[in-house]
Amino acid sequence: MRKPVFVMLTLVSISAFAQPEMPKMVPEMTEIWDPEVTVVTPGESPMDAPSDAIVLIGEGKELGYEWTNASGEKPGWDFENGVATVKRGAGIIQTKRQFKDFQLHVEWRTPAEVVGESQGRGNSGVFLQGIYEVQVLDNYNNRTYRNGQAGSIYKQHAPLVNACKAPGVWQTYDIIYTAPRFNNDGTYFTPPRVTVIHNGVLVQNNMVVRGPTEYIGIPEYSVKPHGDGPIILQDHGNPVSFRNIWIREL
Amino acid sequence: MRKPVFVMLTLVSISAFAQPEMPKMVPEMTEIWDPEVTVVTPGESPMDAPSDAIVLIGEGKELGYEWTNASGEKPGWDFENGVATVKRGAGIIQTKRQFKDFQLHVEWRTPAEVVGESQGRGNSGVFLQGIYEVQVLDNYNNRTYRNGQAGSIYKQHAPLVNACKAPGVWQTYDIIYTAPRFNNDGTYFTPPRVTVIHNGVLVQNNMVVRGPTEYIGIPEYSVKPHGDGPIILQDHGNPVSFRNIWIREL
Amino acid sequence: MRKPVFVMLTLVSISAFAQPEMPKMVPEMTEIWDPEVTVVTPGESPMDAPSDAIVLIGEGKELGYEWTNASGEKPGWDFENGVATVKRGAGIIQTKRQFKDFQLHVEWRTPAEVVGESQGRGNSGVFLQGIYEVQVLDNYNNRTYRNGQAGSIYKQHAPLVNACKAPGVWQTYDIIYTAPRFNNDGTYFTPPRVTVIHNGVLVQNNMVVRGPTEYIGIPEYSVKPHGDGPIILQDHGNPVSFRNIWIREL
Amino acid sequence: MRKPVFVMLTLVSISAFAQPEMPKMVPEMTEIWDPEVTVVTPGESPMDAPSDAIVLIGEGKELGYEWTNASGEKPGWDFENGVATVKRGAGIIQTKRQFKDFQLHVEWRTPAEVVGESQGRGNSGVFLQGIYEVQVLDNYNNRTYRNGQAGSIYKQHAPLVNACKAPGVWQTYDIIYTAPRFNNDGTYFTPPRVTVIHNGVLVQNNMVVRGPTEYIGIPEYSVKPHGDGPIILQDHGNPVSFRNIWIREL
Repeated sequence: MRKPVFVMLTLVSISAFAQPEMPKMVPEMTEIWDPEVTVVTPGESPMDAPSDAIVLIGEGKELGYEWTNASGEKPGWDFENGVATVKRGAGIIQTKRQFKDFQLHVEWRTPAEVVGESQGRGNSGVFLQGIYEVQVLDNYNNRTYRNGQAGSIYKQHAPLVNACKAPGVWQTYDIIYTAPRFNNDGTYFTPPRVTVIHNGVLVQNNMVVRGPTEYIGIPEYSVKPHGDGPIILQDHGNPVSFRNIWIREL
Repeated sequence: MRKPVFVMLTLVSISAFAQPEMPKMVPEMTEIWDPEVTVVTPGESPMDAPSDAIVLIGEGKELGYEWTNASGEKPGWDFENGVATVKRGAGIIQTKRQFKDFQLHVEWRTPAEVVGESQGRGNSGVFLQGIYEVQVLDNYNNRTYRNGQAGSIYKQHAPLVNACKAPGVWQTYDIIYTAPRFNNDGTYFTPPRVTVIHNGVLVQNNMVVRGPTEYIGIPEYSVKPHGDGPIILQDHGNPVSFRNIWIREL
Repeated sequence: MRKPVFVMLTLVSISAFAQPEMPKMVPEMTEIWDPEVTVVTPGESPMDAPSDAIVLIGEGKELGYEWTNASGEKPGWDFENGVATVKRGAGIIQTKRQFKDFQLHVEWRTPAEVVGESQGRGNSGVFLQGIYEVQVLDNYNNRTYRNGQAGSIYKQHAPLVNACKAPGVWQTYDIIYTAPRFNNDGTYFTPPRVTVIHNGVLVQNNMVVRGPTEYIGIPEYSVKPHGDGPIILQDHGNPVSFRNIWIREL
Repeated sequence: MRKPVFVMLTLVSISAFAQPEMPKMVPEMTEIWDPEVTVVTPGESPMDAPSDAIVLIGEGKELGYEWTNASGEKPGWDFENGVATVKRGAGIIQTKRQFKDFQLHVEWRTPAEVVGESQGRGNSGVFLQGIYEVQVLDNYNNRTYRNGQAGSIYKQHAPLVNACKAPGVWQTYDIIYTAPRFNNDGTYFTPPRVTVIHNGVLVQNNMVVRGPTEYIGIPEYSVKPHGDGPIILQDHGNPVSFRNIWIREL
């Protein structure tokens, strides 16, 4: 008769191998109350600075309050009604403050009058920690190398899509930046990471930055340890404008 | 005489240890042109659907066009002028389409008339792939457990800050979701990752999701392999409203 | 005649869209000579300490030279011919030195005479930075919970396979440990990561450690920032032996 | 009288903000028993093949059983007593089997008689999935470019240290390889990752492979989607020998 044998084997099997029943948890075991999450008052629209942001370029704030030129002096760019515009030959402008990880909102506009082509049209850039460039360019009906167009991590990562607006129209970048951490030997322990949303469209999704965004050469070869750094806006000779720039340290 | 000795040592040193001079690269060596980046026309504001988005809830589109209830039938929620509102007892609504990696824009509003407290006030949720919940809750002057408040990955990650607007005011979520990939044994090869921007404020920064967002128990213990999944909006008994929901597959 | 038209279109297409030919690189452009890689003399077998290792337990080195008990005093374990054995009641032993990232070689042996079952048989543990336990257990024909057996990150990750040798036989762990880095709020910026090779068989593959390896509760809930930490060997009441332990700081 | 007021405020504060006491968990809530972990019998030493390994080169197994040359024909290398030696001009040998993620043990020996220098001395290589090379080279007192020496991911990552043994002495590589996963557009969703232990010394720690290990050019530029691939051993013209090669699929 097989049945009893089967039953006995089953019993043995249960005692030797089966998982003991796990005691039931209750909902409160996974509810954490402290510390209370800090309240931040958001702007009226998602483009407006929230209460914990530092406004870098905005109405009613002199450009020289937060920015200098490359020599640490008053920036030579045009500035009117909260709009800063590249002045050819005045060079870059950089924030006096230094940042590590951050969320950054930038609004930019290339000239309504189209001049030049490829990299020569509406070219500027936003340098994160002063080293890693998110390209600003007029790529509305303007072909250039894919890893150098608007929304690219310059010469490293092309944007996922080309979400450019027309020349003369204000555009937005929402950037989430995670600074690199370094090994003792000067290499990255964790590389920089960048998310970019261009005019509401995701163009960089937590991308690994390979190294400084060099015009010539291989990014990995110029990695050097660094601490916090400024935001730098580039003077590439084209009168690109910027407004409503705010940053939140993370 | 020391100079000749010095010269000889230098020569030895060069031949044995020095790096040969690297030939110089030229800029064009790091310029990639093909394939051309796809053009997407952004919305007028970053909150408006870009040209490649699927509008899930919007004006002029019947709710039943993209959504069903849990039984695959016409959703029972109220819907007027592009605004869908939870109808208590009608249950969840879910998209007919299934998604993998995506960018998702959601606008939501908790009732202007405040009723209840903690988890009982303006409670709903956005389930990514039908499994992973980004909590919707009225946390404007309403304390609850930190890992269960608005902007949390429910019971896993509290939001970085509390960026809630007042009851009755429209709020936005911009969500970037990377679906998990699985090992052959059913564990995550890479876990889900979620970025959430709440009213323009970063509240989840590419956070690792530990597993399904369970009300009771440990997320890791309920991981199971899955393919693409729908967006689900929760009926938690409170008349929370939704509008202007669009998604872009990545 | 279509052919000329075709040719003309092709020319247009080339000038408007085609990738300019990239200049050719030469091999030397990707050859980096400096700094010279540091020479380390490996052991005769891969189990033997290389020249840059610190020998923590070995022949001809008193146990008290590198280790103390929990009170910072001379360890009470038995020690003979380079073999240290848990002495019930003497408590844990810990290194005087503190470590961050490291490669660790451990040899261990459970008692030849089998006593007890499940967690009661040949139980000890190797605590990385004093906090994260790689379980030591006699799991040769001894079933226990999978996330608590030999080679597990205790109560977090079961080993990929059970590579145990018989009781009384020496076994090896080769462990690669990457310490966590912390955010300012005390959470992990990067969690600890552990690779374990057990008797030559990979059992943990760069696994993410969720938090301290607690006997009771959820690891994530007990994460606290910490600096370098010691190696700790556990006294779980069973006379488990250890020999040939060496470590290389990374 | 302020004191009573203070007391009352404290009470209010407690009821409004304090974390409710979390119910206590019990140990069994984090003990998972099923499924049972698969048993693998390890080799006698960590260098010996465990029971679930495929022996690719070993005693008593003809070389042509697991390997072919580049044309899919019988490999032309010398093979005697389980030792395969590069035969100049016979070209590479590759496994008939294709692999994804794996643990690989390789023993290799450069010629006892030293001939040539830099890349010309004892040069061969182990190609993972046929694409990604871990360099084999006699770097015992032989300087070459750091990212091309023994234990390097060729032209991408120098080894952490130089752990070479002398010419004519058998050396070991223990390699843990995680294959890339791909996005729909042909880029890496997750890049390949490689850990290499050379003669018991960690030389690559879960390093990200940037792309195919090219002799000329930038690895990222030659990334193409691929499935499983063979192990390939290189013929670089030097009579390098191999023995005791085994692999475990992960």
